[in-house]
Amino acid sequence: MNPARTVTSPSNPLLKEARRVLRQGGLTADGLLVVETFHLLDEALRSSGSVRTVVASTARRAEIDARRLPAAAALIWATPRALDAVSATVTAQGVLAFVEPPGWGWDDVMRAPALVVVLDGLRDPGNAGTILRAAEAFGATGAAFGEGSVSPYHAKVVRASAGSLFRLPCLAGIPPSEVRQRLEKSGCAPMVTVPSGGIAPADAALDRPVALVIGNEAQGVSASWDGCKRLSVPTAGVESLNAAVAASIVLYEASRQRARCS
Amino acid sequence: MNPARTVTSPSNPLLKEARRVLRQGGLTADGLLVVETFHLLDEALRSSGSVRTVVASTARRAEIDARRLPAAAALIWATPRALDAVSATVTAQGVLAFVEPPGWGWDDVMRAPALVVVLDGLRDPGNAGTILRAAEAFGATGAAFGEGSVSPYHAKVVRASAGSLFRLPCLAGIPPSEVRQRLEKSGCAPMVTVPSGGIAPADAALDRPVALVIGNEAQGVSASWDGCKRLSVPTAGVESLNAAVAASIVLYEASRQRARCS
Repeated sequence: MNPARTVTSPSNPLLKEARRVLRQGGLTADGLLVVETFHLLDEALRSSGSVRTVVASTARRAEIDARRLPAAAALIWATPRALDAVSATVTAQGVLAFVEPPGWGWDDVMRAPALVVVLDGLRDPGNAGTILRAAEAFGATGAAFGEGSVSPYHAKVVRASAGSLFRLPCLAGIPPSEVRQRLEKSGCAPMVTVPSGGIAPADAALDRPVALVIGNEAQGVSASWDGCKRLSVPTAGVESLNAAVAASIVLYEASRQRARCS
Repeated sequence: MNPARTVTSPSNPLLKEARRVLRQGGLTADGLLVVETFHLLDEALRSSGSVRTVVASTARRAEIDARRLPAAAALIWATPRALDAVSATVTAQGVLAFVEPPGWGWDDVMRAPALVVVLDGLRDPGNAGTILRAAEAFGATGAAFGEGSVSPYHAKVVRASAGSLFRLPCLAGIPPSEVRQRLEKSGCAPMVTVPSGGIAPADAALDRPVALVIGNEAQGVSASWDGCKRLSVPTAGVESLNAAVAASIVLYEASRQRARCS
């Protein structure tokens, strides 16, 4: 860890790549995710993700000195002005970290008794991150982001997950039909959440191995899930709940049922 | 309703004021809220809010013709280019409506058996709107936005509320101490949601007249609520839930308890 130089220009290639990723979502050309708060840097340091490079503002030396960066991580200083031009948020903290995404497999996502969240075409990164945060909070074993959903590595997903992305086993970009096959082969029943017409989560057996499928904010789930059991949180007056709220309430119910049985 | 002219310039004063409000939040200088989707226009037309002016793209004549605008509402046509420059969203629909906010009183918000949502310093407009949507869905009687919270008339709150702002009785900008006095005078017990250390919502008597106080995303609730009963949704692994998710789960619990009793 040898801070060799101070970046002064926002058009430095590393900063340009970070800016692109923070605005467009996804990973860098090298397959890394970019986080931009000290809180998320700390979560990455504590977690299974590996921190490759930290770019810190020269105005933030104290905060960097207070942390133990891994020996293998490169530390690069940048002027506050150069970093300000990168940030996607209004409350920029003067730090960027390039982190290797955690590597998970199906066995991690479905460890027994499985409680899996499947995102099928969900587009809003704030919703996706909020669902990951609730999934961890309510004891989900993992999440599968189907093809056509936002990337779990979108900077806004990572931010809204408040660190859960670094802890909750998560798979990305899998065709929905493959997700369904995997689940059913493992005895994990897929249940689809719909705004109305399904059974109440309190009346469903959520203490068994189960996968909660959350669809697109406007169109709902795809035809890949035809024939699955349907769940609807009972509501009045509204057409639907926010997708992250609906998912969180079903996860909360699952957690209640599992606590009773344990 | 006499469409007298076509606005061609984004610097038209009405469009400039709409742009300012859509970016900064709050009401126009005339005290109107601005919505920018056909869905929200329809919600406003159906609701207690009164639609004063509709600005529509000349490319959207069919959608406007399909609607019954009130006789007192002014209809102004604008070129698609002039409207595009105004929109705060990437999916601009070519319509803007200036709507009088619904006028509610404490009696509306606290009709028996009261279930009131109090926002105390909550800042994120997406969270605030999502909470209003869940509040309506789970039978809340109304909401009070304390001083220091985001304005319920912020365009992003209205959007995230998916129309609930036009239906759910709602008060804005009231000092927290006054909110507490009002609630306690009416026999409505304030309960504060905190990330941990409170009682589980399932163990609290939420079928009685009750107010759920949701604090700031980072700092929690203010000292005005010292001594109130505290509620915590049981979680594992995370520091806290997203504020809108936590509020929605407590509202969901209240709705379950109330359904059992009725």
